[in-house]
Amino acid sequence: MRGQIFTLSHEQMLKYTAENPFDRFPDGRPKVPDELLEKAKGLSIEEVWAVLPGKGYRMQYAGEGWRIMHPEKKLIGRAMTLQFMPMRPDLQKAADPNAAGGPRIAPHQRFIDVLQPGDVAVVDLYGKIEGGTVVGDNLATAIWNATKRGLVVDGAIRDMEGIFPIGMPVYYRAVHPTPIDYATTMVTGINVPVKIGDATVMPGDVVFGDSGGLYFIPPQFMKEILDKADITHIHDEWTKMKLDTGKYKSSDIYPSPHDPALKKEYEEYLKKRLGK
Amino acid sequence: MRGQIFTLSHEQMLKYTAENPFDRFPDGRPKVPDELLEKAKGLSIEEVWAVLPGKGYRMQYAGEGWRIMHPEKKLIGRAMTLQFMPMRPDLQKAADPNAAGGPRIAPHQRFIDVLQPGDVAVVDLYGKIEGGTVVGDNLATAIWNATKRGLVVDGAIRDMEGIFPIGMPVYYRAVHPTPIDYATTMVTGINVPVKIGDATVMPGDVVFGDSGGLYFIPPQFMKEILDKADITHIHDEWTKMKLDTGKYKSSDIYPSPHDPALKKEYEEYLKKRLGK
Amino acid sequence: MRGQIFTLSHEQMLKYTAENPFDRFPDGRPKVPDELLEKAKGLSIEEVWAVLPGKGYRMQYAGEGWRIMHPEKKLIGRAMTLQFMPMRPDLQKAADPNAAGGPRIAPHQRFIDVLQPGDVAVVDLYGKIEGGTVVGDNLATAIWNATKRGLVVDGAIRDMEGIFPIGMPVYYRAVHPTPIDYATTMVTGINVPVKIGDATVMPGDVVFGDSGGLYFIPPQFMKEILDKADITHIHDEWTKMKLDTGKYKSSDIYPSPHDPALKKEYEEYLKKRLGK
Amino acid sequence: MRGQIFTLSHEQMLKYTAENPFDRFPDGRPKVPDELLEKAKGLSIEEVWAVLPGKGYRMQYAGEGWRIMHPEKKLIGRAMTLQFMPMRPDLQKAADPNAAGGPRIAPHQRFIDVLQPGDVAVVDLYGKIEGGTVVGDNLATAIWNATKRGLVVDGAIRDMEGIFPIGMPVYYRAVHPTPIDYATTMVTGINVPVKIGDATVMPGDVVFGDSGGLYFIPPQFMKEILDKADITHIHDEWTKMKLDTGKYKSSDIYPSPHDPALKKEYEEYLKKRLGK
Amino acid sequence: MRGQIFTLSHEQMLKYTAENPFDRFPDGRPKVPDELLEKAKGLSIEEVWAVLPGKGYRMQYAGEGWRIMHPEKKLIGRAMTLQFMPMRPDLQKAADPNAAGGPRIAPHQRFIDVLQPGDVAVVDLYGKIEGGTVVGDNLATAIWNATKRGLVVDGAIRDMEGIFPIGMPVYYRAVHPTPIDYATTMVTGINVPVKIGDATVMPGDVVFGDSGGLYFIPPQFMKEILDKADITHIHDEWTKMKLDTGKYKSSDIYPSPHDPALKKEYEEYLKKRLGK
Amino acid sequence: MRGQIFTLSHEQMLKYTAENPFDRFPDGRPKVPDELLEKAKGLSIEEVWAVLPGKGYRMQYAGEGWRIMHPEKKLIGRAMTLQFMPMRPDLQKAADPNAAGGPRIAPHQRFIDVLQPGDVAVVDLYGKIEGGTVVGDNLATAIWNATKRGLVVDGAIRDMEGIFPIGMPVYYRAVHPTPIDYATTMVTGINVPVKIGDATVMPGDVVFGDSGGLYFIPPQFMKEILDKADITHIHDEWTKMKLDTGKYKSSDIYPSPHDPALKKEYEEYLKKRLGK
Repeated sequence: MRGQIFTLSHEQMLKYTAENPFDRFPDGRPKVPDELLEKAKGLSIEEVWAVLPGKGYRMQYAGEGWRIMHPEKKLIGRAMTLQFMPMRPDLQKAADPNAAGGPRIAPHQRFIDVLQPGDVAVVDLYGKIEGGTVVGDNLATAIWNATKRGLVVDGAIRDMEGIFPIGMPVYYRAVHPTPIDYATTMVTGINVPVKIGDATVMPGDVVFGDSGGLYFIPPQFMKEILDKADITHIHDEWTKMKLDTGKYKSSDIYPSPHDPALKKEYEEYLKKRLGK
Repeated sequence: MRGQIFTLSHEQMLKYTAENPFDRFPDGRPKVPDELLEKAKGLSIEEVWAVLPGKGYRMQYAGEGWRIMHPEKKLIGRAMTLQFMPMRPDLQKAADPNAAGGPRIAPHQRFIDVLQPGDVAVVDLYGKIEGGTVVGDNLATAIWNATKRGLVVDGAIRDMEGIFPIGMPVYYRAVHPTPIDYATTMVTGINVPVKIGDATVMPGDVVFGDSGGLYFIPPQFMKEILDKADITHIHDEWTKMKLDTGKYKSSDIYPSPHDPALKKEYEEYLKKRLGK
Repeated sequence: MRGQIFTLSHEQMLKYTAENPFDRFPDGRPKVPDELLEKAKGLSIEEVWAVLPGKGYRMQYAGEGWRIMHPEKKLIGRAMTLQFMPMRPDLQKAADPNAAGGPRIAPHQRFIDVLQPGDVAVVDLYGKIEGGTVVGDNLATAIWNATKRGLVVDGAIRDMEGIFPIGMPVYYRAVHPTPIDYATTMVTGINVPVKIGDATVMPGDVVFGDSGGLYFIPPQFMKEILDKADITHIHDEWTKMKLDTGKYKSSDIYPSPHDPALKKEYEEYLKKRLGK
Repeated sequence: MRGQIFTLSHEQMLKYTAENPFDRFPDGRPKVPDELLEKAKGLSIEEVWAVLPGKGYRMQYAGEGWRIMHPEKKLIGRAMTLQFMPMRPDLQKAADPNAAGGPRIAPHQRFIDVLQPGDVAVVDLYGKIEGGTVVGDNLATAIWNATKRGLVVDGAIRDMEGIFPIGMPVYYRAVHPTPIDYATTMVTGINVPVKIGDATVMPGDVVFGDSGGLYFIPPQFMKEILDKADITHIHDEWTKMKLDTGKYKSSDIYPSPHDPALKKEYEEYLKKRLGK
Repeated sequence: MRGQIFTLSHEQMLKYTAENPFDRFPDGRPKVPDELLEKAKGLSIEEVWAVLPGKGYRMQYAGEGWRIMHPEKKLIGRAMTLQFMPMRPDLQKAADPNAAGGPRIAPHQRFIDVLQPGDVAVVDLYGKIEGGTVVGDNLATAIWNATKRGLVVDGAIRDMEGIFPIGMPVYYRAVHPTPIDYATTMVTGINVPVKIGDATVMPGDVVFGDSGGLYFIPPQFMKEILDKADITHIHDEWTKMKLDTGKYKSSDIYPSPHDPALKKEYEEYLKKRLGK
Repeated sequence: MRGQIFTLSHEQMLKYTAENPFDRFPDGRPKVPDELLEKAKGLSIEEVWAVLPGKGYRMQYAGEGWRIMHPEKKLIGRAMTLQFMPMRPDLQKAADPNAAGGPRIAPHQRFIDVLQPGDVAVVDLYGKIEGGTVVGDNLATAIWNATKRGLVVDGAIRDMEGIFPIGMPVYYRAVHPTPIDYATTMVTGINVPVKIGDATVMPGDVVFGDSGGLYFIPPQFMKEILDKADITHIHDEWTKMKLDTGKYKSSDIYPSPHDPALKKEYEEYLKKRLGK
């Protein structure tokens, strides 16, 4: 697959994801450990956001205008990226010469063939709807079986009624009955940086989607986000517990209590819950 | 009702739906048999789409921007069409002279009065929202009782909370509290060709709506679509079954297996399932 | 041309434009006299609007979203209408059987062939842009030579650089390089009621376009509008003359003077200017 | 809190809500009685709309483009209003001088602190999304505990996953991860007239939201709306009951029966149900 | 005029524009001196922008979506503000009781009556188009004669063909033929803070419009902006002069020269041009 | 410049523009000869379009939504491309390590520094407006002096009033006062394939812009387009000449004459004008 369509070489992958503190896949893609992905299920988007902008990462939120299939499930996994651009036969011929002979496999299907367990397929179809339908129910089944995670497509899907029962979280722009149209679009990259909504996504980013939206977390921030989230969880737990008593005004408690006794109570609660 | 507002005459109806292979209603409208409507419940939109564009019918999909009430039920039935245009008193007076005397019945209600079991009311209100609300809960109840199918309106409805419990599939653009406003719109045709979203709909077309969108199938293609769909069903069943084993890459199986043994397995499966 | 594509018969034309007080073309289309079209050059859109809504004609304004070529020239003439709808081969074959043999002329070109001096070509392409380009520079030249008036298209044109130098007023939605695409659209009517923006247009309506927008005036109101406009002209002339002295507050003068002396002055001015 | 940020004085509140027939809160805000709020649960939006436009109140519907959290619950309560405008430090400093010292409480939190049981927080954030997120899950909990009613924000919320489980009805424009951004927006008024969608809302208005949209009912119309609604309820009940028999065309029954026997039947039903 | 409709009292005006360093009108509105308005003609929007965000004023740009009449003239003057809100008869009756008797003058016309030379009429019609047309040609003439500056309306105008020849700069959203519709909108404030596009405008702000957009400059920044602009002018003059020689790469010269000789040349040029 | 930010290597440039029949710049970018650029001034967009889709190049039109500065001048030149993506500090640091020390030059300015005479700067800012302003008047002057051609930016510019007098054709999305914001965007490529509107642009493509839109012509088609255009020119010249006589219906002449005498006349005209 590699070598034809633009792909970051192993060397480039290391260079462009140099801050990754974890292991890597054989092709160099960062491999955030499974246990961190597991822990991330407890995160909320606000906890992700509490860290990233302060580090200069203000554009990791995919923005508005997404439809979500199965918003009741969080989508968490490692990004594998696929990039489309408007069709130009000269560029396509140069990038993908084996298109011309042998048992031809459509480029997006070659991408699906190499997905790993724990991956999320992240597809930049630059918002294309008609003819921008990266999967129907058959290939959606293939993605689900390969990854057990899900799909993000800045474009469309087809066969809503066939995809829904799979139970896979999908973030997409629209549904359209046309199949993908290789007369107007083409694959130009696999595991390259892609633009999804308002964000730049790198291969190996942690995709984090819930009912409030879609985020892409660079691996180097996973630990800090998870650590801070523990405290935020306890803080919010305590805050809501106090507010639920009906005895306090919001400003007595939030963002933090002014009253020294309450302050102390909170600090003890925090300590206890942190298990110290 | 007829004779006043533009309606295809019996002769015109035969001429403009000349390819209909089925019976007709007394007014000439094609009557796709009930058993085909019944069989159509098993169709997916992709199976419809697999046939129509290849026949030169590329514009039978109503496009995007619809809200669906009860997407969990498929909407399938024969189109009865109602056309509105922006109000012009001179044209309305000429088209509907009995508007002036006797126990006046609103034109859209006369349309509802003649709906038949198995019909879908298809209303072209050219996207009008304020004052473009063709039914509230009372007339929606009337449509439901008359057709047991549903309503498509390229315009609005009112009284969401009253219509929802009826359990009828409705495809619509918006909800608005205003009643229909005959100072700004008027009925100009019943059972004439209408434009619904991106499609031209003829009386007698099979309306096919599911959670993925809305289609209008000319009667002459119903049999071919249903025949091809059987094979597609079995193909997708087998494809997903294979992919669910986790033993294959997507391209081993889809769109069709390369491996001769798999190929043979599929062909036998197909034959068996087709009952041959 | 007639007989194939929907067209109002002579009898229907008389029925649906029954309030026309003027002569008619041989096909029954109202023919507002040339001298009234000439006088209409002095009208402003507000003078048109001062009459129509009060008669129940609230929807004769084409609404927003138009581009205007040569807004420095008013567009005034008699509507010839052309209606397109999304393509359906069965309907097209029935409506236009001679499409199949002989020296085929594209339907929109047959429409252009019958335009008369004083006509405005009014084309309902339902906002279609790609493949909805009713003319390029050659056919625009043909419209100009036939009518010396202009073109309204609720759709697109192509060849901006070739059309502009003709000097013809054109109201259109967009420019696109594609030629008109008869695989996705078809002509369904000539001289039938059409929807242009927010308005219903009848053949024979007076098209009135200036830099502020586009109106369609039913023939029966032309005289009343022109008569009232004389008084409005004089009123506005006097009002601005007074305001230009810098001696008055707006409410001293507008909408009408309170001061008896000013009132009298205005009335005498009006009488004199009306030539009484 | 008052005195700094624009607020209607007690005298102004009485003047601008002079038609309120009910008690008032200490600050002058109208207090529609609890039993009327309770009765309003049986209302539909169409019953509200049946009264207001006829009184000259045509703009009490908030219009389209809202997202609804928990549309299965009606939102009914008394409006407390909060107004934001784009940030101007000079105006903010003048309006809210204590921002500069002491234990600072964010202006929107001071608003939340004074919410009463039965109130609905109505926040004009002029459609601002990024940085226009008036609450996350902690402050949403505070609103819920204070009012047991809900929130309307012509702007955004954050922390969808944390707010949803509270079970509070929220009408909002979008979800965004940013916290509210006091560098680009500021609070300019509490309990002043605000613009929410297409409507002007006064403090003390009855907020009425269901799955069909959002209304603001001036207190002076509550009784008339509720009285008329009883009759409409019975009318619709009878109409649907009749239509459900399948024996009638819609126009036999709706809007009212023509047949004298049916007419009489309806009138007796009405009388009986009204308990007369 | 005052006293009925919301207006900042003299005391409030002083409080909310406390940072104004210049004289004031009798009602307290800041009066930026004529000579500064005159000097402002030499400003570009970028020079305005060079100062305001750094002071915390990031929202003084009216944003996108404006049409400009006479973009070849700069619009510079002191803001007089007029605020509309969606109609509510109870609020209007309370705010404007004399609407009921005597020689009634429409509220927006009372506003036009008090405009001063050097003022710009700034009208918040919250984007309303139909029925949101604050002036036609007569009242536009009145504004022009009173101010010799111009009009900003976040709403519509009517009578394009009559207003254009006046030669007055107008910033507006659309043209519509309807007159202003007091059944759906009402005046709620004169010389109060208003929202125009993305900005909050105070009475007395300097309105600054050119072909690139629309700004509102608080009086307290006028001197600093004008002072800095002198240097920017000379800098840009020198930069372009150098680039026009064709001898330099952009980075040799811009934003400032690296080469010591060039640096010195620039500094001497600056000194000379500043007249030192 | 190269080596840091993604750039096609010389080898890649040759591979991806392999069909270029002309000379190349030292970095491998195709160099369509000056005389062909000169001849292209006579082309219309329709003549470009007459060739490209038939070769499978259907996506070379940049689509709608562009503003054009100086539409009276055609923009013709060789594409130099610049690609931005939403900011990610890790990727930027890897791509552009010298950002950290030495006399820093902003990445987009390094791009401007290497523009050649005959080039068009083609900038993919993915539609970003606020903070997506690639040039103001100083850098626009630099582009003009370097290229004498112009600028295409799928994003914004600032300083309209300063750029306009330069007289350079610019195709852009909007004007905004903010400078380019490197906290939210970053340069990711120079002379790589970019997406501009609906098209993929390669370095060395011929940019062709007129008042009707914007095209990108792969070098390999320049000769064929120019050759065919000669005939189209003569055809249109003859067609309009004939139609201008007023003696013919459009279908007598267009698309080609049916009458044998006219046919012959045209053929002789064509021969003569082609200089044969």
